[in-house]
Amino acid sequence: MRHWIDTNDVQDIALGAALLGTGGGGNVRLGSMKLRRLMALGRLVEVISVDEIALDAVGVAISGMGAPTIDVEKVPNGYEGANAVRALERYLGTSFSFLVVGEVGGANALEALSVGAMLDLPVVDADPMGRAFPELEMDTFMIHGVSPSPVGLADAHGTVAVLADLDGPLRAEKYGRALTTVMGGSAALAMPVVRGRDVRDFAVMGSLSLAAHLGRLMGEQHSLQGIHEALRRSGHNVVQPAEGKIVDLERHTQGSFARGRVTIQNGDRTFVILLQNEFLALLEGESVLVSVPDLITLVDQESGRPISTDQLRYGMRVAVLAFPAPEQLKSARALRVVGPQAFGYSFPFTPLPGQYPRGPWFAGH
Amino acid sequence: MRHWIDTNDVQDIALGAALLGTGGGGNVRLGSMKLRRLMALGRLVEVISVDEIALDAVGVAISGMGAPTIDVEKVPNGYEGANAVRALERYLGTSFSFLVVGEVGGANALEALSVGAMLDLPVVDADPMGRAFPELEMDTFMIHGVSPSPVGLADAHGTVAVLADLDGPLRAEKYGRALTTVMGGSAALAMPVVRGRDVRDFAVMGSLSLAAHLGRLMGEQHSLQGIHEALRRSGHNVVQPAEGKIVDLERHTQGSFARGRVTIQNGDRTFVILLQNEFLALLEGESVLVSVPDLITLVDQESGRPISTDQLRYGMRVAVLAFPAPEQLKSARALRVVGPQAFGYSFPFTPLPGQYPRGPWFAGH
Repeated sequence: MRHWIDTNDVQDIALGAALLGTGGGGNVRLGSMKLRRLMALGRLVEVISVDEIALDAVGVAISGMGAPTIDVEKVPNGYEGANAVRALERYLGTSFSFLVVGEVGGANALEALSVGAMLDLPVVDADPMGRAFPELEMDTFMIHGVSPSPVGLADAHGTVAVLADLDGPLRAEKYGRALTTVMGGSAALAMPVVRGRDVRDFAVMGSLSLAAHLGRLMGEQHSLQGIHEALRRSGHNVVQPAEGKIVDLERHTQGSFARGRVTIQNGDRTFVILLQNEFLALLEGESVLVSVPDLITLVDQESGRPISTDQLRYGMRVAVLAFPAPEQLKSARALRVVGPQAFGYSFPFTPLPGQYPRGPWFAGH
Repeated sequence: MRHWIDTNDVQDIALGAALLGTGGGGNVRLGSMKLRRLMALGRLVEVISVDEIALDAVGVAISGMGAPTIDVEKVPNGYEGANAVRALERYLGTSFSFLVVGEVGGANALEALSVGAMLDLPVVDADPMGRAFPELEMDTFMIHGVSPSPVGLADAHGTVAVLADLDGPLRAEKYGRALTTVMGGSAALAMPVVRGRDVRDFAVMGSLSLAAHLGRLMGEQHSLQGIHEALRRSGHNVVQPAEGKIVDLERHTQGSFARGRVTIQNGDRTFVILLQNEFLALLEGESVLVSVPDLITLVDQESGRPISTDQLRYGMRVAVLAFPAPEQLKSARALRVVGPQAFGYSFPFTPLPGQYPRGPWFAGH
């Protein structure tokens, strides 16, 4: 199936991706402004389903690297993603025939579409997370052995960088992070290079259309109730394990990560959310109520909008929503990379009940 | 002219390059061990004069990036330089037809020869410094407008990096330094990409044969007197503005630089040498006796050997030798990049009298 993205899709994807971003993945407002501007200039962007690409066709995943707290302050030149892709093509001596969303959470869902519009490449309706994660190795492609090399990075000064012959995803993360930091704390990232077969076998299928579907169900009227309903109707088994007022907020930008903890008070109950760009775990005292890879989303009870980690403010009244991660993230192999212990916590992962749904194909409006 | 390097040349170049290294440029003992091992395996390395290369032939300069203090502790894999060159060739989609010594001071004089031996490429008898400098932009090619892009870097883990579309040499230095630091503090550097014409017009000609000539004149018998004589006989207008005992030594490795100051006491006279990988300036009270770009070399009065910044020890008795920089480093344009103010000092450059000589062509033994 093939679908040309229209401006309603852009809005829907932005809304849905903000929910799937679990607090991170980049500012969707900036991401959708960029994509809309490209479309206004006549650029088209096509989404295709995985069965439209040959098993040995070569493509690349697109996302951003850096702290969302920096992203909102730093002016991009707009060509970063396209430059990162072109640098990889030049290094490989080949042309890509498709793009993949590098992470469907937050602005990254839209960035692949913008790059596709600029380079005239179709974007596959799939991603290797079904959410957002803070580190580069946290990706179902690499979890299943797809090479992290080569990595393409590009910054707002027009600089491109290619990292290759890396001995593993952790080195890609380490070197990519150092470059992102010196690039000003945020950069476009093109990696990993994948075959059609890798997308079919390892990616979370239909996650871009899921974001669009979610956003469409949320619609213009924002409310906590509307978000609950949209998540439920799109097939997410959503729960609301906490709500209350933000009474303490520690957040600092360090090594191109926004790290910290949020304390939420509700009567005599106190909840803590640990974060690293994304919301990683919800605790009440010693009990772990939810943790990565399951998804945690905060909704501002006043505006009815999902809150990203850079938008957290002391005194906000928030509801904490949680829903199950894609199956690909819950295997023993995946949990070594995206489970609580991968983030340095000692507690095990206790999955929320239920499945991660697959979005129905873009339905039009 | 063409010359096949033999093991005597290796020793001569190592000795001479240590003098021209002004305390930096990497450990010549490690550099000559590596080159000798390659030659023992039957690899040949040819040095050519600039008139042997076509004006539009494409080559690349080879050196190392990082702190010499780290270099002696970190085990290289031996292929770093060759990997950096191959990464650039791959990115450019071209093959280089020659190499240039990136800096003739210290082990960098030998590194280009090792890479030439591995990749079967001739090395031009020239370099863009005539000495060693701590920062990547301090290079007569870039001073005269040769693009710093693309930059090739490689580390001991086998990783390669290409930086391209840089908006100037300072960005190349900044990003290359950040990568070198995360690579463990030392990396092989292939840049800038040059044409035969650039070598002819901008490089310090004959500096590799000058290093060999200097080393041959020094010979096996090391003494301060022997070094004075070798410098004089090779055409350097050498002076000895200070000598004494090292009574204070501040040296720290920071951002892949060894920075610090050495205090030398001689009776009631006190001298200070400022360093950043290399010796940058010699001061006595408020007077600047010598400064970059002129060359400052420390000789251990006991062993009669040149001392690199990583070999400095409290209590050493040293003689400070100084001699004039190549003319290419003394123009107003060059001084903006390699003069005292480029290193943050407020004093002007007062050149030592005399010329930087050109080495006679490799004479055999």
